[in-house]
Amino acid sequence: MNMNSSGDEEKLGNGVVGILAESVNKWERRTPLTPSHCARLLHGGKDRTGVSRIVVQPSGKRIHHDALYEDVGCEISDDLSDCGLILGIKQPKLEMILPERAYAFFSHTHKAQEENMPLLDKILSERVTLYDYELIVGDHGRRLLAFGKYAGRAGLVDFLHGLGKRYLSLGYSTPFLSLGSSYMYSSLAAAKAAVISIGEEIASQGLPSGICPLVFVFTGTGNVSLGAQEMFKLLPHTFVEPSQLPELFLKDNGISQNGKSTKRVHQVYGCIITSQDMVEHQDPSKSFDKADYYAHPEHYNPVFHEKIAPYTSVLVNCMYWEKKFPRLLSTKQIQDLSAKGCPLVGICDITCDIGGSIEFVNRATSIDSPFFRFDPAKNSYCHDMDGDGVICMAVDILPTEFAKEASQHFGDILSEFVGSLASMTEAADLPGHLKRACISYKGELTPLYEYIPRMRKSDPQYALLP
Amino acid sequence: MNMNSSGDEEKLGNGVVGILAESVNKWERRTPLTPSHCARLLHGGKDRTGVSRIVVQPSGKRIHHDALYEDVGCEISDDLSDCGLILGIKQPKLEMILPERAYAFFSHTHKAQEENMPLLDKILSERVTLYDYELIVGDHGRRLLAFGKYAGRAGLVDFLHGLGKRYLSLGYSTPFLSLGSSYMYSSLAAAKAAVISIGEEIASQGLPSGICPLVFVFTGTGNVSLGAQEMFKLLPHTFVEPSQLPELFLKDNGISQNGKSTKRVHQVYGCIITSQDMVEHQDPSKSFDKADYYAHPEHYNPVFHEKIAPYTSVLVNCMYWEKKFPRLLSTKQIQDLSAKGCPLVGICDITCDIGGSIEFVNRATSIDSPFFRFDPAKNSYCHDMDGDGVICMAVDILPTEFAKEASQHFGDILSEFVGSLASMTEAADLPGHLKRACISYKGELTPLYEYIPRMRKSDPQYALLP
Repeated sequence: MNMNSSGDEEKLGNGVVGILAESVNKWERRTPLTPSHCARLLHGGKDRTGVSRIVVQPSGKRIHHDALYEDVGCEISDDLSDCGLILGIKQPKLEMILPERAYAFFSHTHKAQEENMPLLDKILSERVTLYDYELIVGDHGRRLLAFGKYAGRAGLVDFLHGLGKRYLSLGYSTPFLSLGSSYMYSSLAAAKAAVISIGEEIASQGLPSGICPLVFVFTGTGNVSLGAQEMFKLLPHTFVEPSQLPELFLKDNGISQNGKSTKRVHQVYGCIITSQDMVEHQDPSKSFDKADYYAHPEHYNPVFHEKIAPYTSVLVNCMYWEKKFPRLLSTKQIQDLSAKGCPLVGICDITCDIGGSIEFVNRATSIDSPFFRFDPAKNSYCHDMDGDGVICMAVDILPTEFAKEASQHFGDILSEFVGSLASMTEAADLPGHLKRACISYKGELTPLYEYIPRMRKSDPQYALLP
Repeated sequence: MNMNSSGDEEKLGNGVVGILAESVNKWERRTPLTPSHCARLLHGGKDRTGVSRIVVQPSGKRIHHDALYEDVGCEISDDLSDCGLILGIKQPKLEMILPERAYAFFSHTHKAQEENMPLLDKILSERVTLYDYELIVGDHGRRLLAFGKYAGRAGLVDFLHGLGKRYLSLGYSTPFLSLGSSYMYSSLAAAKAAVISIGEEIASQGLPSGICPLVFVFTGTGNVSLGAQEMFKLLPHTFVEPSQLPELFLKDNGISQNGKSTKRVHQVYGCIITSQDMVEHQDPSKSFDKADYYAHPEHYNPVFHEKIAPYTSVLVNCMYWEKKFPRLLSTKQIQDLSAKGCPLVGICDITCDIGGSIEFVNRATSIDSPFFRFDPAKNSYCHDMDGDGVICMAVDILPTEFAKEASQHFGDILSEFVGSLASMTEAADLPGHLKRACISYKGELTPLYEYIPRMRKSDPQYALLP
């Protein structure tokens, strides 16, 4: 399509939707719309769905291959210039951004994230309309398009796989060794079957007493935590209250660590904690109050390292955290705990909150190499599983490991919006939840996001806060 | 047992068998005898089986845990001093070797391997009797106690797993990504089921045309090759003769590489080659003769790089090789091939013949990190999957990945010999196949192995040859 010859730019590509070939991370195999979503949009007719054509950029690594899109009537082409609306999971390469189109993807720009400001500048200069999935929220402020549950599911499986290797390094053969990473299963169902299978082995053969009780502590109760718990619950398990943790470690309860005994333990333990288990008011007479804690976190002292961490084998971090709150576990705290001897084997940081609630998780890891080992005594970081310290996982692209199901889930919801986004109406005419997700309209920041330039100019520290 | 008080040293520990905790490699989870083998030996009665007691050193990582040995009547103890015969897969720590006992394990000493001469010295100085499993051969010179088939099986699965990652780095999502390493399955059967499952995906969804035809070339026809082929055959496949390889690459046959087409290929190809496909006589008038080749390898020129390699995607190396033969693939040859453009993606060197038939496979890899990438153009070695070159796998402890089945197989055969070995008869009275496997008898090299000291003193180059 020749832009210059178009007399009706507002209608550019009206109803023609493009799907990007993902280019940010080699592991990105998700797609915003699956072939079956495309089939429904195309065959429903433009009057009903708002979509007349779908052009799919060819990709060898998208979880659904090109021929499947072709089969349902999509066009396969690198050239998206006919498209009015272009969908990705993540951003296209900057030089590929077409002028005056509408784009929808996770842009990570609304907090003025420094690394993505060239992207925002390009969007503005090309008079692009940008919708950010992260900002599509329902009436109760809940995000409608999110992958949190898939992150939790994939993260827990990946961690169990690493746990098997870590225990082997410590001299223990465990059923966890018989588990792969999430992406090594052709479906979420297949991964679940594998977890169930190692659960059966734990139930029948037991775990070595030297690593028991094996206690998984989950922080938070959101979708990430629910996804992680969903996989954990496939193992033979008992959930305990935070207050019950010390009992598990009593010497004569039959499950506590007792050296060279041949006794085996036939289950794992779970414990879900929330902010009331992490902090206490500086005034001992005051009990925990969540609203007060959120308003005045400076009045609260951290207690996780005293009350929970000494009984934690695996910390599964799934909670939202901001700098105003005390850290969950500081480097100093892990050093003190480690010097005293504590059962902590690993950190499964599904939030991937770098330098955040867990201070020593100071780097993201990749699906290829998902773990690092932090040795508190030496304050050192290594990539092997052999040696002292705790293993840490902080992969920032977990949901792509279940690319098929994550894409299905995502497209189910996105399909509902595509027609509205593709119709190229004035931003003002969009439904509220889409209007609020529109960062740039034809190259102008929308009123909700006019703060971004101010944020960019202000204190760089502030630029990291929402 | 107090050695000094024993008046009948010949009868020391007669019928009492020890099983070592393996200490050489953290991944070593195999055991020479499973609990069920022990049960049969113990419950059969000493008169019939020659075994009266079995003492098992505790191990957290042996594939069968201590309690299972205890259940069948074995004693769990670090102290093996009551035992006359001590069994391992690999050697014990030198300082743990008890004097005047009989040991059986893979000692890797009979070629005067330099790294194991301290072990042999210790054995001689402690007046130990040493049987080496590798030297227990049947009437036709065939090894009776070997893990080759398990190496082939585990190696092929591990390689397919890496192939998936490599193709992803090259921009292709393939069913191979949905496969783990062998040790990530709780059984050989579970690993086979997983290979079958990705085979179904290849059959139904196909492979991207850009990586096809995908040709696996197997060298050799022994147990290693048979094991690798066994797993390969679980994929939808066609075996072709070496002479048919060029046809697969004809442009218009529908399976050759054709860039961005959305066409898919629904199978893989296999080709088994033997020495007649690797070399040709310097005199063009003479056809290949195996006996002549083995007698006069210097009369033959290598042709693998011309006749086979240009059509090979994956080279599965399973063949016996000695320095007297031409290399299968030299560094210079891969550099020339690579410069011309060749489909070779990877080397699965199950023989783990370092600096041997494949010159640039110059290092062994580990189960933790099974691949390196060799870039012929830069003559460089890297540990990542991203970038130019071929990926190479050369893990030297593959059979332990199927520790359960490999141990069962091994113990089935070893059980037959244990009584004879444990009876502590004079070496001369042993059956021939065990006598030939006895390197040291009570600290004296047996006549068959008196060459070892001469070999140690001779040219170090010579020391590498049998």
